[in-house]
Amino acid sequence: MNTRAHPFDAAIGLAVDGHDAFVGETNPGYANRIGPYGGVTAATLLNAAWLHPARAGEPLALTVNYAGALADGRFRIVARPVRTNRATQHWSIELLQADAVAASATAVFGTRRDTWSSTEIAFPSVPAAAAVKRLSGYDGPAFIGRYEFREIRGGFPDFSKPGDGTDSETCLWARDDPPRPIDFMSLAAICDLFYPRIYRRRPRWTAASTVTLTTYFHADSTALARQSDCHVLGVARAARFGNGYSDQSAEIWADDGTLLATSFQLVYFKD
Amino acid sequence: MNTRAHPFDAAIGLAVDGHDAFVGETNPGYANRIGPYGGVTAATLLNAAWLHPARAGEPLALTVNYAGALADGRFRIVARPVRTNRATQHWSIELLQADAVAASATAVFGTRRDTWSSTEIAFPSVPAAAAVKRLSGYDGPAFIGRYEFREIRGGFPDFSKPGDGTDSETCLWARDDPPRPIDFMSLAAICDLFYPRIYRRRPRWTAASTVTLTTYFHADSTALARQSDCHVLGVARAARFGNGYSDQSAEIWADDGTLLATSFQLVYFKD
Repeated sequence: MNTRAHPFDAAIGLAVDGHDAFVGETNPGYANRIGPYGGVTAATLLNAAWLHPARAGEPLALTVNYAGALADGRFRIVARPVRTNRATQHWSIELLQADAVAASATAVFGTRRDTWSSTEIAFPSVPAAAAVKRLSGYDGPAFIGRYEFREIRGGFPDFSKPGDGTDSETCLWARDDPPRPIDFMSLAAICDLFYPRIYRRRPRWTAASTVTLTTYFHADSTALARQSDCHVLGVARAARFGNGYSDQSAEIWADDGTLLATSFQLVYFKD
Repeated sequence: MNTRAHPFDAAIGLAVDGHDAFVGETNPGYANRIGPYGGVTAATLLNAAWLHPARAGEPLALTVNYAGALADGRFRIVARPVRTNRATQHWSIELLQADAVAASATAVFGTRRDTWSSTEIAFPSVPAAAAVKRLSGYDGPAFIGRYEFREIRGGFPDFSKPGDGTDSETCLWARDDPPRPIDFMSLAAICDLFYPRIYRRRPRWTAASTVTLTTYFHADSTALARQSDCHVLGVARAARFGNGYSDQSAEIWADDGTLLATSFQLVYFKD
């Protein structure tokens, strides 16, 4: 390991292990309560396609299915370009531990061209990141310490207080800690930064975990370079809770109001 | 083919072709301008997992990647249960023609349990389906004729008229024609029923096609049985257009106000 590497780069780092295959290792710095932070798993799966010699273009879409708990330690990723077209390239990616699929993913990469553009949704009215108090002293899993959180609404749950029970929105500024210029992999990870929406609506603990996560990358690498290591604004909410599952939809914005990504997930909750 | 079968069942019909494999055929009744209607392709991929002897539970999530144009004629689907857990089962599904992957998908099936529930988004204020004029005489591809459309806002594009240019929302009542009791497969197909959002914002024709589609099924089979063959309400809009791609997010509601599905897609457009 390069000791000067950012912890995030160490966490998503992969070594080539034959044709279409890579090996990596879970990183204690990005641990969640059980196994690694799902955002880093998503970023690592995307990184396999990113590093693959056959890659064409930049990420457009990523879907990650969290099939089983990841054990701490080594894993293998098989990333296969299933079809390469003129504009788009489709990937199938699997993360394996002990020959079992712990996560599966599909990704679409593509070339972007200059076309008519419009952002139809509005950047929310929020104070600048510097004007929002930074979260500190939160007693959470390790990966929380690898991000800077500046919560505007719907901050980390405090189960000792009643929730408002009416809406599940969270709005916050966030970035890697230490700051790191954003790229597609760190953006993919940030899309999963919101705690389970059920804690916003119902302030008591229950087991909850992401089942499947889909992210659309609206930013190209130029927009990401412009954003560099500044705070991004994240907004997330649920539409529906029931039968042990809830959804989440989220937007990640650059601080200049550029929409970087929209992201969706389905979350299991116990009761 | 069973001549009494509904056209939709004929279109998504599959025959077993060995371990994890099925064969099917494109159906002219569900043709789009080029190849089959993408919603029927999504439904057919889901149907492969649905029909698989190893299936456990009901669909929770489906992601379909449209990797290449489907030619009219036969295709093969390989549907593989990559992991089966106590609550969830993860699928990898590929549709092949001439040994090339034309579509790839992942699906999550699962068991639903009675838990706390809440629908946070509101059923829109709309007239009842019977009070909305049915679309007729629209000069579109064949699959349009297999659905009943009752458009409330943002109806099929008329490029001879200027658009309002400010919002991309479409809101309509729809169902299969002839009416057919809704199930997970027909719901998956209906999620793709909205024409490309760019036609709403910019009223001129350009080539546009879905790149990837993700649907979360909030309804269980009991809710679908209750809905039967009544009209569902569909609402769709985009968040962002640019660099040759746009997104779409949509909700499909039962006529009693139950949220049946939320669905997301990334769409390629030419210019």
